[in-house]
Amino acid sequence: MELQTIGRSLPRVDGIEKVTGRANYTDDFKASRMLFAKILRSPYPHAMVLGIDASRARKLAGVKAVLTGADVPDEKLGISVRDRFILARDVVRFVGEPVAAVAADTVDTAEEALDLIEVDYKELPAIFDVEEAMKSDPAVAVHEGATSYVFSPGPQFYGFDRQRPNVFAHYQMGAGDTEKGMREADLIVENRFVTPRIHHGAMEPHAAIAQVEFNGGLTVWVADQVAHHETRAELCRVFGLPPSKLRVIVPYIGGGFGGKTNSAWPAPVAMLLALKTGRPVRLVFSREEVFVDGLTEVPMVLYIKDGVKKDGTLVAREMRVILNSGAYSNRIPRMTANMSFGAAGLYRMPYFRWDSFCVMTNEPPSGPMRGYGGTPLNFAIESQMDMIARELGIDPAELRQKHIFKEGEKNLVGGVTECIGAAESLTRVSKWIEERKTIPPEKGPWRSGTGVAVVGKIFRSGGPAAALVKVHDDGTVEVRHSASESGQGCNTVMAQVAAEEFGISMDGVKVVFSDSAVTPYDVGSIASRSTWNTGHAVRLACQDAKRQIFRLAAQRLKVPAESLEIKGGRIYVRENAPQGIQVHDLFVRDGLLTPGTWLLEAGEILGSGVYAGASGRPGDEKQQRLSGAVFAYGAVAVSVAVNVETGEVRVLKAASGHDMGQPINPRMCEAQMDGGVGMGVGAALYETMAIENGVTINPNLVDYKLPTMVEVPVGEDAASMLVTTPLHKDGPYGAKGFGESTNCPVAPAIANAVYDAVGVRIKSLPITREKILEGLSK
Amino acid sequence: MELQTIGRSLPRVDGIEKVTGRANYTDDFKASRMLFAKILRSPYPHAMVLGIDASRARKLAGVKAVLTGADVPDEKLGISVRDRFILARDVVRFVGEPVAAVAADTVDTAEEALDLIEVDYKELPAIFDVEEAMKSDPAVAVHEGATSYVFSPGPQFYGFDRQRPNVFAHYQMGAGDTEKGMREADLIVENRFVTPRIHHGAMEPHAAIAQVEFNGGLTVWVADQVAHHETRAELCRVFGLPPSKLRVIVPYIGGGFGGKTNSAWPAPVAMLLALKTGRPVRLVFSREEVFVDGLTEVPMVLYIKDGVKKDGTLVAREMRVILNSGAYSNRIPRMTANMSFGAAGLYRMPYFRWDSFCVMTNEPPSGPMRGYGGTPLNFAIESQMDMIARELGIDPAELRQKHIFKEGEKNLVGGVTECIGAAESLTRVSKWIEERKTIPPEKGPWRSGTGVAVVGKIFRSGGPAAALVKVHDDGTVEVRHSASESGQGCNTVMAQVAAEEFGISMDGVKVVFSDSAVTPYDVGSIASRSTWNTGHAVRLACQDAKRQIFRLAAQRLKVPAESLEIKGGRIYVRENAPQGIQVHDLFVRDGLLTPGTWLLEAGEILGSGVYAGASGRPGDEKQQRLSGAVFAYGAVAVSVAVNVETGEVRVLKAASGHDMGQPINPRMCEAQMDGGVGMGVGAALYETMAIENGVTINPNLVDYKLPTMVEVPVGEDAASMLVTTPLHKDGPYGAKGFGESTNCPVAPAIANAVYDAVGVRIKSLPITREKILEGLSK
Repeated sequence: MELQTIGRSLPRVDGIEKVTGRANYTDDFKASRMLFAKILRSPYPHAMVLGIDASRARKLAGVKAVLTGADVPDEKLGISVRDRFILARDVVRFVGEPVAAVAADTVDTAEEALDLIEVDYKELPAIFDVEEAMKSDPAVAVHEGATSYVFSPGPQFYGFDRQRPNVFAHYQMGAGDTEKGMREADLIVENRFVTPRIHHGAMEPHAAIAQVEFNGGLTVWVADQVAHHETRAELCRVFGLPPSKLRVIVPYIGGGFGGKTNSAWPAPVAMLLALKTGRPVRLVFSREEVFVDGLTEVPMVLYIKDGVKKDGTLVAREMRVILNSGAYSNRIPRMTANMSFGAAGLYRMPYFRWDSFCVMTNEPPSGPMRGYGGTPLNFAIESQMDMIARELGIDPAELRQKHIFKEGEKNLVGGVTECIGAAESLTRVSKWIEERKTIPPEKGPWRSGTGVAVVGKIFRSGGPAAALVKVHDDGTVEVRHSASESGQGCNTVMAQVAAEEFGISMDGVKVVFSDSAVTPYDVGSIASRSTWNTGHAVRLACQDAKRQIFRLAAQRLKVPAESLEIKGGRIYVRENAPQGIQVHDLFVRDGLLTPGTWLLEAGEILGSGVYAGASGRPGDEKQQRLSGAVFAYGAVAVSVAVNVETGEVRVLKAASGHDMGQPINPRMCEAQMDGGVGMGVGAALYETMAIENGVTINPNLVDYKLPTMVEVPVGEDAASMLVTTPLHKDGPYGAKGFGESTNCPVAPAIANAVYDAVGVRIKSLPITREKILEGLSK
Repeated sequence: MELQTIGRSLPRVDGIEKVTGRANYTDDFKASRMLFAKILRSPYPHAMVLGIDASRARKLAGVKAVLTGADVPDEKLGISVRDRFILARDVVRFVGEPVAAVAADTVDTAEEALDLIEVDYKELPAIFDVEEAMKSDPAVAVHEGATSYVFSPGPQFYGFDRQRPNVFAHYQMGAGDTEKGMREADLIVENRFVTPRIHHGAMEPHAAIAQVEFNGGLTVWVADQVAHHETRAELCRVFGLPPSKLRVIVPYIGGGFGGKTNSAWPAPVAMLLALKTGRPVRLVFSREEVFVDGLTEVPMVLYIKDGVKKDGTLVAREMRVILNSGAYSNRIPRMTANMSFGAAGLYRMPYFRWDSFCVMTNEPPSGPMRGYGGTPLNFAIESQMDMIARELGIDPAELRQKHIFKEGEKNLVGGVTECIGAAESLTRVSKWIEERKTIPPEKGPWRSGTGVAVVGKIFRSGGPAAALVKVHDDGTVEVRHSASESGQGCNTVMAQVAAEEFGISMDGVKVVFSDSAVTPYDVGSIASRSTWNTGHAVRLACQDAKRQIFRLAAQRLKVPAESLEIKGGRIYVRENAPQGIQVHDLFVRDGLLTPGTWLLEAGEILGSGVYAGASGRPGDEKQQRLSGAVFAYGAVAVSVAVNVETGEVRVLKAASGHDMGQPINPRMCEAQMDGGVGMGVGAALYETMAIENGVTINPNLVDYKLPTMVEVPVGEDAASMLVTTPLHKDGPYGAKGFGESTNCPVAPAIANAVYDAVGVRIKSLPITREKILEGLSK
């Protein structure tokens, strides 16, 4: 059947509400008698908390509660490793760690109270250098007695590295004996790359409102990408609440990008204060707090050593990747494994070895950021590929094409390559840039160059999702899912799925926001998974609802249910279209003079769907490491101009090409690429959190430099290309997820273009003027 | 199987939250940028609105919108007859009719703005006497051109009385030729009774908050007994909204008693202002507004003419009942029919005739009040029965016993008498009072007496109800229904049903408040129907959820689903109890290190149930007038003291006995009776809205006299008796509804006791000192 709605660039279902300022975010909700919270944070990167005197703060008029580490649950927060109290107890481990929290009648009063809390600290030596920290005898163990932490590794983790006290996860994988491979090579290329701590730059700060319910339960409004799944479960565990007693509502989210995937945020503090005061409590982070405790991209050191034949054939690769987790582990243990798939899923080579480490330091906690390590990884690999090509005098694009996996080929972790559009993406973006290549402005200080980079990014196709679809008596199809619309457009995608299944326009679909009291289970808005997983579940729920409709209609029409179709709110006999009935007419009119309608036979038409991923039951011991994992592939090409006098880099043109199987909404796919380029330009040229002795000295959007529309190529200077073939055989309508891969190759493409322009190879991000001038001076 | 939870006096599920002041009512909700509304009301009982100048009000700082009749939908409000604009257009018909509405930043500003609106009225003659108004050539036609109103009568209505312009409904029914019956009688007893307009006295005033949603829809929080059913449908019709675009949420309701069953309340005005301003709007009535526009008990004139044999046998009865609907019809057309069932369902007699009229006057609009006409009706019939007994020298209780229908007997409208406990109720309350009879204090001015009255009240067993039951992964059973907890305790009843079905304690059940986005269709909290209808639906939904659980458990246990039972969260094999599994274990743990659980096979365990009533499809032409109708029966006996010098009446003792089949919660059944006596004492002795030329002169709780604990017998002076046999064969667990019948017989029992004490027959309510002194002086 030809697709009607899927594949069309329909307007976003939330577009009007957002551009008119009427969308409600967590911060916009008000509750009766609501209090406002603020957090007192550690000024030291590492210190003992000897005592806290909050008596003056407690006496301040308007202050309703002051809590410290003594008031928090004994259970610690942590996704993989449980290592963090809601408020610090005894020890603080980074500048910005919460030490006390205040709830007061106004924000001003809460802030005033913070100044009245006296904390007696004893400073401890701190450690910031991740390579120093990962030694077996580091100067500082960030978490003394770390053996007491609960660590529940899945099959992909080797668990604690007991020899190195700051290493919280060590993941190894590989294919073949790389040492043998190196011996077979003609050339060894070995490099060290460094990437910084960067900020997601989401417009909305982290925010939560907690309200105590009379049954002892709590309702929490929270800006959270995984509220229904991990956050709710995590909060239940830490607070000792059964799941039915914690309702989690996710209003509009003003950008996530991985930064809103952690429960160590406002929610638990707001919950504690709400439980203490019995009143609703709102806690909204300041921008500074988002910088220091809102999770930031993991700074990494990436060693890469390749053995290559003279013709460019890659024989062996060894990677050693050190992830600076900051003071707490959050999702970084998991990332050590996840990143390896990106390293192993794109290029063919006989020998491969991966070692990655999650290492604690006294920096602010790291977290996922769009790509889940993809930008650092791609920067290292794609810079390295360029260096090999240059070394051997091979065209960089050609070297890549030579190694990109073919459809059906086994990748380096034993998964089968499916639906790969990397080669086509690379061809198309290279051609686009070539055709627009700037004639080198050799007059003056500007030099121009071009660069490319390719990406293969795993997305999570196995995380379970459930959906409900209610059909109203006016024919409206209501979709209930919990993927959480974080701005990426998943509600529009789900509406398109429902519109497609029912043969109706988007006006006839209503998508409900994630609310654990209404919408069913979903992992959430991470890992580029919503379209695939939640999309599948919504489609199944639609089909279930249609079965119910057909059963009801079959009774009325006196035909078999199997003979029926539905379109535009009308059910009809497939072979005899004039015979039909409106959805509306399935609902009985109450005979008692009232205009209300209801459904006699069924109460409601409520279809349900659940999708567990191609791999079946998650956690199944027998599953392959990569089963249930699907890759999105793409390429970016850029042209740049570099000023040899000032070191300034301008990105002149950028082309993105990515595969997504069947695009559900082509314009939204392009928007993912447009945004990915913007984010990538920032990571490449401008963004870094400046941390001195643990203190973030630029925690604001004045001193921290995000690119603006001036720095990012747009309009005629940019192209976003949809590589739509082949469709993915297992995806909904052949679609797959790809949002996260769009930004990852941008920084290496720019680095490669800079080299092309001025012959300077930059191996650490961002590519600052100083680094270029320094390179030129050599 | 023996009942575990049903039949136990368990604490109310909302008790703690209410007594601790934490329950949120509509007024407690806050929304971002919320505005506050006030209504300008007519000072005239009947006038033309020649013009409105709101320009000064609109200019007042803080005023966001001023609306008048020109701004309201052309569709009129009305349950049976559509006769009222949201804001008056051209004509006002009662003192207090809304003429304009203001939304402003604060309540004070909104009130100030009202003073700045200038309305140019031209007074018209008004009519207040209901018997004058029902004439064929009345001095005033309250609704000129009434033929334009849409009237959709059901089978029980004869429709418009075109000969009499103020008669909006005329209902006739009967059995046999009463004129013939009168000729067969030895004695004709003919009387005229009058009852006043009284106020429900609910603690919470009418309130609504309306919020515009970006999709063009609206969300309305409203204190409303029929929000999901009539109010939502009515508002959709008037505003031209499809049902999916109007979400109706019902928080706690602070008392309904029938007064919160009308859409002509704050909701539509708040909706209009929200649509105009784009901001949430809250409208809470003042107490005065609740009096004049919150619906009040229908004032009635009741003519009753009986033909009786010398031995007391009733041969024929003719009743002619005139209902003063006030200026708009609301639910009064329907009441003309509904009341007749009460007149025809209790006492055997060969000939019966009923005529009732809904008549418009220029008084405030009338509405349902606990019993739906039951107090006026019972006052007339039970006073009449006493007068016949006295006339013939028969014991009043004995005369009643002689005529009460026996189990299985056909009543006067052809329904079969089922589960009748009237005779036992009367015996028990009479005995209780007799044993505590006050020795006449003949010294001094006080005289004592006793009186009884019996009631047979139809309750609605046919109104459809649907319910959903979700079983959480911690085993908690969540009940979703839309009956609306108005204080009567239906949420506790539903929790007891769910606890019973799952074999768990009440702690394990969570009842969700009515919210059309979550909870399924239900007629609402009226007509004593919740326990029967919604109780049935909840029970069916529990059984559906259990089937799903058994199907899942059967796969795990490898036994047939039919062999399974559930109790205390554990599913086990009926014949082999040690073989079992916890509900919790049906949920799969996600393998990816997270503590979240989910249900692989089903997404959610979500059972649904729907109950349409014994009569099958509502509106079915073939149904009997009374099919689907079930009666609750009961009796009240009181002793009073009357001061022959001052006319003061004190109710010394009161006994209530009512049948309810299986009591779900005996203490809550007693509480219904306790409250019924309190309300009945008020109606008997104190309450009347004093209206002079259409102006309510006592619209507040200082001047309008509600009885307090001093006036109502409590403790040892009162008894509430549960008549529990027989069970009702069709009710859930044998239960039936009865809340509304408890107050109806109180006023006639008191009137009869007053006659017993001092020989004065009062035929109009309330029984004031003046009336008694006047009677004594004759």
